[in-house]
Amino acid sequence: MDWEVITKRLNHLLDTQRHGELRGALMMLNEVDIAEFLQTLDKDKLLMVFRILPKDISSDVFAYMDNEQRQMLIECISDTEIAKLVDDMFIDDAVDFLEELPASIVKRVLQNSDVKRRAIINQFLRYPDNSAGSIMTIEYCEFRSGTTVAQAMTELKGTGIDKETIYTLYIIDQKRQLIGTAPLRKLIMANDETVIDTFMETNVISVKTLDDQETVAETVRKYDLMSIPVVDTENRLVGIITVDDIVDVIEEENTEDFEKMAALLPSDSEYLKTNPVKLALNRIPWLLILMISATFTGIIITNYEGLLNSTTVGIILTSCIPMMMDTGGNCGAQASTLAIRGMALGEIEFKDILKVLWKELRVAVMVGFVLAAINFARLMLFSGESMTVAVASVVSVSMFLTVLFAKSIGCTLPMFAKKIHLDPALMASPLITTIVDACSLMILFSISTSVLGI
Amino acid sequence: MDWEVITKRLNHLLDTQRHGELRGALMMLNEVDIAEFLQTLDKDKLLMVFRILPKDISSDVFAYMDNEQRQMLIECISDTEIAKLVDDMFIDDAVDFLEELPASIVKRVLQNSDVKRRAIINQFLRYPDNSAGSIMTIEYCEFRSGTTVAQAMTELKGTGIDKETIYTLYIIDQKRQLIGTAPLRKLIMANDETVIDTFMETNVISVKTLDDQETVAETVRKYDLMSIPVVDTENRLVGIITVDDIVDVIEEENTEDFEKMAALLPSDSEYLKTNPVKLALNRIPWLLILMISATFTGIIITNYEGLLNSTTVGIILTSCIPMMMDTGGNCGAQASTLAIRGMALGEIEFKDILKVLWKELRVAVMVGFVLAAINFARLMLFSGESMTVAVASVVSVSMFLTVLFAKSIGCTLPMFAKKIHLDPALMASPLITTIVDACSLMILFSISTSVLGI
Repeated sequence: MDWEVITKRLNHLLDTQRHGELRGALMMLNEVDIAEFLQTLDKDKLLMVFRILPKDISSDVFAYMDNEQRQMLIECISDTEIAKLVDDMFIDDAVDFLEELPASIVKRVLQNSDVKRRAIINQFLRYPDNSAGSIMTIEYCEFRSGTTVAQAMTELKGTGIDKETIYTLYIIDQKRQLIGTAPLRKLIMANDETVIDTFMETNVISVKTLDDQETVAETVRKYDLMSIPVVDTENRLVGIITVDDIVDVIEEENTEDFEKMAALLPSDSEYLKTNPVKLALNRIPWLLILMISATFTGIIITNYEGLLNSTTVGIILTSCIPMMMDTGGNCGAQASTLAIRGMALGEIEFKDILKVLWKELRVAVMVGFVLAAINFARLMLFSGESMTVAVASVVSVSMFLTVLFAKSIGCTLPMFAKKIHLDPALMASPLITTIVDACSLMILFSISTSVLGI
Repeated sequence: MDWEVITKRLNHLLDTQRHGELRGALMMLNEVDIAEFLQTLDKDKLLMVFRILPKDISSDVFAYMDNEQRQMLIECISDTEIAKLVDDMFIDDAVDFLEELPASIVKRVLQNSDVKRRAIINQFLRYPDNSAGSIMTIEYCEFRSGTTVAQAMTELKGTGIDKETIYTLYIIDQKRQLIGTAPLRKLIMANDETVIDTFMETNVISVKTLDDQETVAETVRKYDLMSIPVVDTENRLVGIITVDDIVDVIEEENTEDFEKMAALLPSDSEYLKTNPVKLALNRIPWLLILMISATFTGIIITNYEGLLNSTTVGIILTSCIPMMMDTGGNCGAQASTLAIRGMALGEIEFKDILKVLWKELRVAVMVGFVLAAINFARLMLFSGESMTVAVASVVSVSMFLTVLFAKSIGCTLPMFAKKIHLDPALMASPLITTIVDACSLMILFSISTSVLGI
């Protein structure tokens, strides 16, 4: 059924106050879809529908709602209801939620949580933003070394339903150090009296609490994991991260790279929900920096005043400025994008820099030759009588050199940026255009001056 | 242990021909790491090490090797070995592998596969590239409606080890139509005589075989799924896609967007492994198109020859060309990146276009005002005596209007592109810069002409 039809029906049930039917209809939907429906409601209706929801799914729905709506809801419901909600959520969802709330509400929420859970949440809130610790969950299944299959199965049947995943079992020793993992499938296949140590995987891939979430995502992707254990500095198991959360991390990190490469300060919030002032503030810093840098390119132009004021050749060269700048910028962007992306995916490292440069130079020679040749032909064919072979050659040779320069700087700058621990996407991409602009005009003008003798 | 130390030791064992120890050492490593080690070896050593590997992990390792190496290996090993390898791989991995091979080798591989498997692989190879069908796997656990928990557990114990995931069970009716799913955890918690239908989830989220992989990834991400069933046009279950494959799809789609936004033709192959000619061919088309388009901007300049040749004001305006072009381009890129990314993440749809435009206009007014004001100050303070208030005002007002124009076109063009089923990243991003360039200069020159009366 079409989503529009569904919301129409739900709204109809809501407007005609047929709460029993509405509840029944909602129970047919996925929690994500229910949350999406709730987004469209005003405060009063939101509260009413939320209270209609069966208790066992309301905390799941709550986890999928966006922060504005959750805050609105929190303000309306009783302290007991808040406590129930937060206690029913997985720790990582609860922490995510609390991180976005004003301090006063966090306090109110925590006061209504039970003591043990409050302690855990407080500890989570202390992990730095975007660290493995801040996105992990503690709802996993751990077993002491020496547990038998029968014991493990009994325990699973008792507690498994509250765990975020029971499909990987974590085996720890006396000191709580992680010594192995076992997939649930092996437990199911094994005999009751087998000790889990016999089939556990001892070569465990784990991350540390303070590792950046980007590192976590890279590891999970590389090894095709469904979940990854998080350990403290002494290799004690403290949590796990499941791949569904990693999918969100990957999209978040990609969005950040897209934003940085477009000269935007990264932002966590959804575009349509961000207010214009905040959007403007995210954009102005880089625009200003790049605008000021572009004036240096202007200064180069001023320095060749004599050249540009010489009537016929001057106007031809001036009219080539956009083409030189754009082509240089595009060539640089192509090379830097491939380098930045290659590093993000772990395909390129700093030690490959000479290999990359050599490859880019060969590419640049081919690309530059094609562009220069076509440009030469265009200038000779379509530019009227004032065009001479000398001028067309000067422009074409400059084009060739600009491509060479743009490709070289485009691929190496991001790699150097990463080497000195600057973000390649941030440092390299918007700056490259500006650098290439200035240099392409310098190449054009200096060759013109020396060859044409103006 | 450090990866460099590990490879050093492995190489030492290999060079000194201590095959038993080498085999033991390799067994301590993850399959992904073994594949990484194999990448560093030459043909002879590769073959030797590969044959040393225990048979049960060699097909996993093979699945993680890159295509060049796999092809090298395939050429050296016997037909029986090939058949064994392909038969041991999951169907989706086997198909992935075969898709990249030359037809002659595919034929040889398929001839050595068993009849049933060959039929399945052939069917998979017929699904369009990047469709759900082409990335799905058939190794899943399905049960007829009416099966009891005890029956299901027995069946799982018998066959589960060969399934890519046993953690979601798929329930089908007499016609093989998918009627529900059940997480394994519920099976474990339930009593032996319970019928699985009683706890299955009937509101199943599935995709069709011909759906684009981007759609699949979006759905999996939205609903936080660990796997998603793939059905044919009559809702019959034909396969599943697990989230670890979705992670790769997401990165692939993101890379594609990055490439398109940098005016590159998308390419599947790793940068370092692509030959320069292919890289050059991926870059030349857009560079050419954009270079030619930039000549229109040049024509605009030529049209204002009189203005630009008037000594003092002319050179000031010429020196502002890079700044106007860069700032316009950057503003456009910011807006288009947010729109393209918002659409890719499903946060923005075409129906939001007026909301987006209205937001961008407000942002543009703020950004434009700040940039224009700072630009005015800069021109008045640092430009020497030839600068007049009139000229500085003209440049600043043009800057303001350029920002307004760039933001508007930047956010709307990608949305229109998507509306008419063109790729927003491809059509919009590189073109926007070119359009904005031309228009920003037109704004600057026409205002100059009318205000300064030249």
